[in-house]
Amino acid sequence: MEKPIVVVTGAAGFIGRHVAREFSEKGWYVIGIGRGSWLDWREYGLSAWHCSDVNFNSLQEYASNPNVIIHCAGGASVGISIEQPADDFNLTVKTTSDVLEFIRLCSPSTRLIYPSSAAVYGHVKTLPITEVTSLNPISPYGVHKQIAEILCKLYAKQYGLSVAIVRLFSIYGNGLRKQLLWDACQKFERGENEFFGTGEEVRDWLHVEDVARLFIIAAKNATKLCPVVNAGSGHGVPVKELLQYVSNQLGFRLQPVFSSNPKVGDPNAFIADISKARYWNWMPTIDWREGILQYVKWYKQCQ
Amino acid sequence: MEKPIVVVTGAAGFIGRHVAREFSEKGWYVIGIGRGSWLDWREYGLSAWHCSDVNFNSLQEYASNPNVIIHCAGGASVGISIEQPADDFNLTVKTTSDVLEFIRLCSPSTRLIYPSSAAVYGHVKTLPITEVTSLNPISPYGVHKQIAEILCKLYAKQYGLSVAIVRLFSIYGNGLRKQLLWDACQKFERGENEFFGTGEEVRDWLHVEDVARLFIIAAKNATKLCPVVNAGSGHGVPVKELLQYVSNQLGFRLQPVFSSNPKVGDPNAFIADISKARYWNWMPTIDWREGILQYVKWYKQCQ
Repeated sequence: MEKPIVVVTGAAGFIGRHVAREFSEKGWYVIGIGRGSWLDWREYGLSAWHCSDVNFNSLQEYASNPNVIIHCAGGASVGISIEQPADDFNLTVKTTSDVLEFIRLCSPSTRLIYPSSAAVYGHVKTLPITEVTSLNPISPYGVHKQIAEILCKLYAKQYGLSVAIVRLFSIYGNGLRKQLLWDACQKFERGENEFFGTGEEVRDWLHVEDVARLFIIAAKNATKLCPVVNAGSGHGVPVKELLQYVSNQLGFRLQPVFSSNPKVGDPNAFIADISKARYWNWMPTIDWREGILQYVKWYKQCQ
Repeated sequence: MEKPIVVVTGAAGFIGRHVAREFSEKGWYVIGIGRGSWLDWREYGLSAWHCSDVNFNSLQEYASNPNVIIHCAGGASVGISIEQPADDFNLTVKTTSDVLEFIRLCSPSTRLIYPSSAAVYGHVKTLPITEVTSLNPISPYGVHKQIAEILCKLYAKQYGLSVAIVRLFSIYGNGLRKQLLWDACQKFERGENEFFGTGEEVRDWLHVEDVARLFIIAAKNATKLCPVVNAGSGHGVPVKELLQYVSNQLGFRLQPVFSSNPKVGDPNAFIADISKARYWNWMPTIDWREGILQYVKWYKQCQ
């Protein structure tokens, strides 16, 4: 039997790599398209890697009638999205428009998984956050993710494309070289312990391997109704507690202190209601303490 | 005193022409940018007409620090938007993104008026439609207008741009050579009297000259809170009644008949609540019977 084919856009990125590996391990033929000079792509289980912008033409050239596309390409920083909103728009919205148009015109039976973000929720009033919570994003990053979702729903409803949207909460894991965890490890190593915000901000941490498994399940559940599911652990961890744990695991035992100025564009609290993903028979398998322990070990090794 | 400057994108279009003329008559220096070969642009009061796509570069070249931009360029047909959604996306969403980015980077004190559409409401449950009615567009045209609105709100909130959004209901007037009124005149002239739909569909007709006056008022009310106002008459007219009136005024006295199949992408009923625009001291001045009478006279002349 021939292997099913998945195209992972942005496969060289943190999440893309893990998604490629997971599909490959489950027996899929994995094609990657995206930016970034990437030498060891074979180690992640890809059968082909095309270093290219993700657009209609590159999809036509490299993505021949795949069973599934996981569109991981997109803007990847709230901060950069504030400084350069047009770039974030092109990376997130324009590429999604092109992926949808490619499927509509060239490969209508392809199922699309769109990794969105909890940033679409913005400041929320009640926790945990369900998928029907009203969207109130507070950064260009979040707004562009919201717009990409709207386009996915349009193509599903209007043209019958099979799509599922997965709203990612705080995703972490080996290989993540940006954001809070990475910055914290580097700061602690330099003997620094000062962080933005109050430390009381709550995040819902989910290991990237659990995300990759959810994408495989989402691919089975993609329909023209375009279901949306939250991807989190269902539990919130205050930033202060997380960073103290990181510091301890690194062996520094530094007490993190906080500037009390919340970082611009960062909402206060995120805890996912994950009953919908659980209904698909998915559940998170890696507790945050176990996952952070792994992460810190990886961090030490790669220094 | 120097004249204030307005840039009208899509100035060669039906609404754009009337907007250009209205601003010109009120003492503005009018620059037009947009598609279309247009020879008699001086007759509409423009001081300059640049036949060009609307994008960041053409705005940089032709729109030097205007007081106001009226972004009339955009997709203009529900039907074409269904056939070619990527074109409609580029015409509506991408141009709006470029206009906003141009203002942010090159001309931050410019006020932007965005002509949106009642199509963002889609099927509504209660009439009249207020600006807080939830948005449920049912065509790519309506979805792309919704996305353009979201971008306007983002740039207003995040970067302090002064913006106002005007949601246009059924706009008509001399020069309109498409849509129901134009098609109806042509059909009646050929002796035909069959129309799509049930005839019971209700539309809120507003004369394009009233729209142009509202844009001038909206420019004064544009802020970083990005107010949204409906632009309609506040009254609904069933399509059957409108077409009977058109037929009578044309002198054919043909009874319109209906196929009973609603046109795809067309909602059932639109009546605007216009209290918000009235609060700005605007009101519609041309009753639909008077406006249609004018239109029919214009139609006869241009045959």
